[in-house]
Amino acid sequence: MVSTRNPLNIGAAARAMANFGFSCLRVVNPYDVAFREARSAVGAAPLLQEAEKFSRVADAVADCRLVVGTTSVGHRELQHSVRRLEYGARLIGRALAQGPVALLFGSEKFGLSNPELSHCQWLMRIPTVSHDLSMNLGQAVALCLYELSRDPKAVAARPGQIQPVSAAEAEQVTTLLLEALRTSGYLNPVTTASSEDKVRRLVRRLRLGARDAPVLMGMLRQILWKLGE
Amino acid sequence: MVSTRNPLNIGAAARAMANFGFSCLRVVNPYDVAFREARSAVGAAPLLQEAEKFSRVADAVADCRLVVGTTSVGHRELQHSVRRLEYGARLIGRALAQGPVALLFGSEKFGLSNPELSHCQWLMRIPTVSHDLSMNLGQAVALCLYELSRDPKAVAARPGQIQPVSAAEAEQVTTLLLEALRTSGYLNPVTTASSEDKVRRLVRRLRLGARDAPVLMGMLRQILWKLGE
Repeated sequence: MVSTRNPLNIGAAARAMANFGFSCLRVVNPYDVAFREARSAVGAAPLLQEAEKFSRVADAVADCRLVVGTTSVGHRELQHSVRRLEYGARLIGRALAQGPVALLFGSEKFGLSNPELSHCQWLMRIPTVSHDLSMNLGQAVALCLYELSRDPKAVAARPGQIQPVSAAEAEQVTTLLLEALRTSGYLNPVTTASSEDKVRRLVRRLRLGARDAPVLMGMLRQILWKLGE
Repeated sequence: MVSTRNPLNIGAAARAMANFGFSCLRVVNPYDVAFREARSAVGAAPLLQEAEKFSRVADAVADCRLVVGTTSVGHRELQHSVRRLEYGARLIGRALAQGPVALLFGSEKFGLSNPELSHCQWLMRIPTVSHDLSMNLGQAVALCLYELSRDPKAVAARPGQIQPVSAAEAEQVTTLLLEALRTSGYLNPVTTASSEDKVRRLVRRLRLGARDAPVLMGMLRQILWKLGE
């Protein structure tokens, strides 16, 4: 993070790093008060305590094999190739196999200056709807780290489905519901088969969870008991 | 946003919405001071000015076809199916074709309460490294909206490549460099072919941009001129 002004943004960046499993935070020429405040904040991440401070970008990125700048591509004409976050993150993922990669974030107000950008091999841009809207710095850091740790396979995965009811349980619910509907007068006591089918289909459409079936049956039994009083 | 306490978070959410092209912000039972402060902040997004305030979740989501809660899945046992952001966002994308979708965010401290969660069809979780680390609210909103508007095709696209030099330009640079190396005594005046090949390969490895070739040639010509003085 280069020339960061707001301690909340340094703290937010550290929190996002902890969230997505990154550990090495380096700050270049921060406003001293901001850095001290961020460090001493209650609940500051341990990686914030261990953050290193540098006075020059060159020193901060010295051990890195790849240096990538971030930009909102405002009005400046950029001399670098600019890659969208989705694609750039994939390149960074590959480069990390070869050695450390630095991801540079500029100041809240001006982003990275041209001298700072000159340390970068290429730039990465978060694809917002308008190039003129700058991003909140803490959010920009979170988005980059999220994309870097994003698992493309998770798009197709269907995790944590609720266990559906068995056909037998659905039918038990249906039977009780039909009984309640007949008893209450919603259906004729001698129900036509087509009305029964309608109710049966409705229960199937509800996609009941296995845990919900006994609860519903309890409700219906209680209603039936009350109707029978 | 339900029971949001910090005006900065309401502002950050509004900014992320503007960044990713979303327009309808609804706040439920916010701390009044927070909402007023966020609204009056300098540079507040127009959508913050138009944000509607409700006192109950039920009223805020009344016109929505799908209501999705967000959670960090901390220690509470959840009664809903929980989907990872990457997959959940795809489902929301499809549901948006049918009608409005509400995405609920709870308070900074406690997230969504059980009564608030009961309005949701299912929940979405941002895949952080640890379930125990809660996310910064403004960052969580930004990540969800980023994923919702993310273009999977952009992962494979190679935008904005720098135009590489032609072989002829690379050879011009090589010729000048060899001349400078001979003149300076780095190479013998009668250079062996294998040394020349080494320099030629080095220049090709540099992957020069078309714009860089004339600059480098200018440098080398100047060096040669100085060497010849």
